[in-house]
Amino acid sequence: MTFAFEITHKDPDSYARTGRLTTPHGTIETPNFIFCGTKATVKGLSPAQLREAQVDIILSNTYHLMLSPGPDLIAEMGGLHKFMGWSGPMFTDSGGFQIFSLGHGSVADEIKGKANRIRDKSVLKITEEGAEFKSYLDGKRFHLTPEGSIDIQRKLGADLIVQLDECTPFHVDKDYTARSMAMSMRWGDRSLAEWKRQDDGKQRMYGIVQGGVYPDLRKESSEWTRDRDFFATAIGGSLGSSKEQMYEVVAMCSAHIHPSRPVHLLGIGSFIDVFSNVLSGIDTFDCVSPTRIARHGWALVKGAPKERMNIRNAKFVNDGAPIDETCDCHTCKNHSRAYVHHLFRVGEILGMHLLSIHNVATMTRLMRDVRKGIQDGNLKQIRNHWVV
Amino acid sequence: MTFAFEITHKDPDSYARTGRLTTPHGTIETPNFIFCGTKATVKGLSPAQLREAQVDIILSNTYHLMLSPGPDLIAEMGGLHKFMGWSGPMFTDSGGFQIFSLGHGSVADEIKGKANRIRDKSVLKITEEGAEFKSYLDGKRFHLTPEGSIDIQRKLGADLIVQLDECTPFHVDKDYTARSMAMSMRWGDRSLAEWKRQDDGKQRMYGIVQGGVYPDLRKESSEWTRDRDFFATAIGGSLGSSKEQMYEVVAMCSAHIHPSRPVHLLGIGSFIDVFSNVLSGIDTFDCVSPTRIARHGWALVKGAPKERMNIRNAKFVNDGAPIDETCDCHTCKNHSRAYVHHLFRVGEILGMHLLSIHNVATMTRLMRDVRKGIQDGNLKQIRNHWVV
Repeated sequence: MTFAFEITHKDPDSYARTGRLTTPHGTIETPNFIFCGTKATVKGLSPAQLREAQVDIILSNTYHLMLSPGPDLIAEMGGLHKFMGWSGPMFTDSGGFQIFSLGHGSVADEIKGKANRIRDKSVLKITEEGAEFKSYLDGKRFHLTPEGSIDIQRKLGADLIVQLDECTPFHVDKDYTARSMAMSMRWGDRSLAEWKRQDDGKQRMYGIVQGGVYPDLRKESSEWTRDRDFFATAIGGSLGSSKEQMYEVVAMCSAHIHPSRPVHLLGIGSFIDVFSNVLSGIDTFDCVSPTRIARHGWALVKGAPKERMNIRNAKFVNDGAPIDETCDCHTCKNHSRAYVHHLFRVGEILGMHLLSIHNVATMTRLMRDVRKGIQDGNLKQIRNHWVV
Repeated sequence: MTFAFEITHKDPDSYARTGRLTTPHGTIETPNFIFCGTKATVKGLSPAQLREAQVDIILSNTYHLMLSPGPDLIAEMGGLHKFMGWSGPMFTDSGGFQIFSLGHGSVADEIKGKANRIRDKSVLKITEEGAEFKSYLDGKRFHLTPEGSIDIQRKLGADLIVQLDECTPFHVDKDYTARSMAMSMRWGDRSLAEWKRQDDGKQRMYGIVQGGVYPDLRKESSEWTRDRDFFATAIGGSLGSSKEQMYEVVAMCSAHIHPSRPVHLLGIGSFIDVFSNVLSGIDTFDCVSPTRIARHGWALVKGAPKERMNIRNAKFVNDGAPIDETCDCHTCKNHSRAYVHHLFRVGEILGMHLLSIHNVATMTRLMRDVRKGIQDGNLKQIRNHWVV
């Protein structure tokens, strides 16, 4: 059995569930968190450190890797698993997300509703055929089609891959969203056809639900993914302008997507978002924030206000306690707040490193708690320990 | 037995020897390499990673720590060992080296003969009392006296500490060198007196041999250290303008320093310098270069031209071999040249990290080989494997 998804427990009062997702590189328990290894590395951490932090699955970004070092080089080196030294399950995106970021500002902001209407036509051109864009590295022009994205993802060799879609920004109207969704469906069919043509049994594909904040479009797109031969479902596109709207948009999909396929929510991963969205049946999350905020001095802390603590705060200068007294990660077992504070204050790279370890370990611990909460039927109580 | 130095083997044809240096935090085999943890961290590596790379002993810089976070804070946090999570033997310098760098440009360049005659009087004022300087962090004025240096080093709490000396630059004449040496002797006596006054059995002090490139001054300074109650000897000051002159200057001291005390050579640590200077009886070395050059993409490689390899070189783009096929460090066991090349090319911090691990592990391996070579009487053959 190289690929499978088995639902091991269903919450009677919501779509929440636990499961077991099997790939040729191993089985992970769900819900789980997929850590972003953008350029073939989770920033600052070695694969050995990821394993020590109990990471089960990572993703890499097709967009960054197609620019450097390029898919052919990675294929020549035996694929992404071997190239970066990660032997566990792996996911790649289609490249679309970052490409459309070039046109729309930050798509990461866009899917969370922070509108940015500037689109530089010279950077990005979207046609039925695909997307044409300039490399941020050297200005070289690239053309990414659905077939091209699948071909690149095949060369990268991750277990789980995704169709190409247009990631619509928040500020576009319903008419644009509907037309974009329809094109993403055609791109999805082309992606599937290309995957089938090349299928060697080593990869499975996610179809992506689009439709912005519109219930009828989300329903239509969900049913479209359900009725296609995708292995799994990803929820993409704009999720509105507030957390409440995000939860509503995700919930719009629950009843209409394929009920027994794994479901991924693209680009979302705060504690509160995890607790809220597992109720709509989300099985996996990804977000760059655990390592990104670590590099800016923020520690994720269970039960802290806004889920985090700024280690640069002067009050930590002589605080001998670990970052989180309840955490048993390498950083918390070995180092004090005062030491990590010092490292940030004098600009030492080890500070970013120790906080990244802690934040990654905290997310894996969160997901273990979430799984246990679903299984034990006490997710609400567990949520109250994590989110204040 | 909290402190001891036992010579375990003497080379019949040179001053080379192996030994065992005991401190309250453990015993190390010598010759050995002391890794620079400038601001209470060996740049980029956690104490756990240092131990994995078989590091036995580290040093921290009094100058940097007196500016931030300050000796009182470190004392409040239980001392430097506890503060930074290093439980093994530790060394601190006097702070002088970096202070005089402010006045002379880079003292690291100076001791190797790269003259820089610019001295900013506002930054450094040297009197019989001590050195006055401005913090590079905030311009605040500090005064460092021999007594103050020992007091700070006591608060930091390293096992091995050093007297305050003036680190004379290469370009000064013999008259200045002689006068400076005489003042360093007076500073050494004051350092010793202060250490004795505060001695709690937890620290031992190195006296420093000065005298520039002048044999009569080196002899006089060596004998001065020999005749004082220092635990150990450090060779400091200008070592000339070439490697050959460095080896000569170090050799000038061998017959005149105390024969049964450990001998440290300050700030020197290339493969060839290690092989050459152990012949003059050097027991420990320190140098920032293993981690510094790693951050710029240079890997230390046994038997490579100039001892190193630039991983940024385009020829490594698809090189699946480890950095050094003969190395069993974490990086070489798990990652290829192609991957580390990629990480540097796309600016990922993990590249610096993996090379730092490799370079530190390579230096510890060098020192194991040097010890074995001295014991087995085949140091020359071993040198020929390391240095081409």
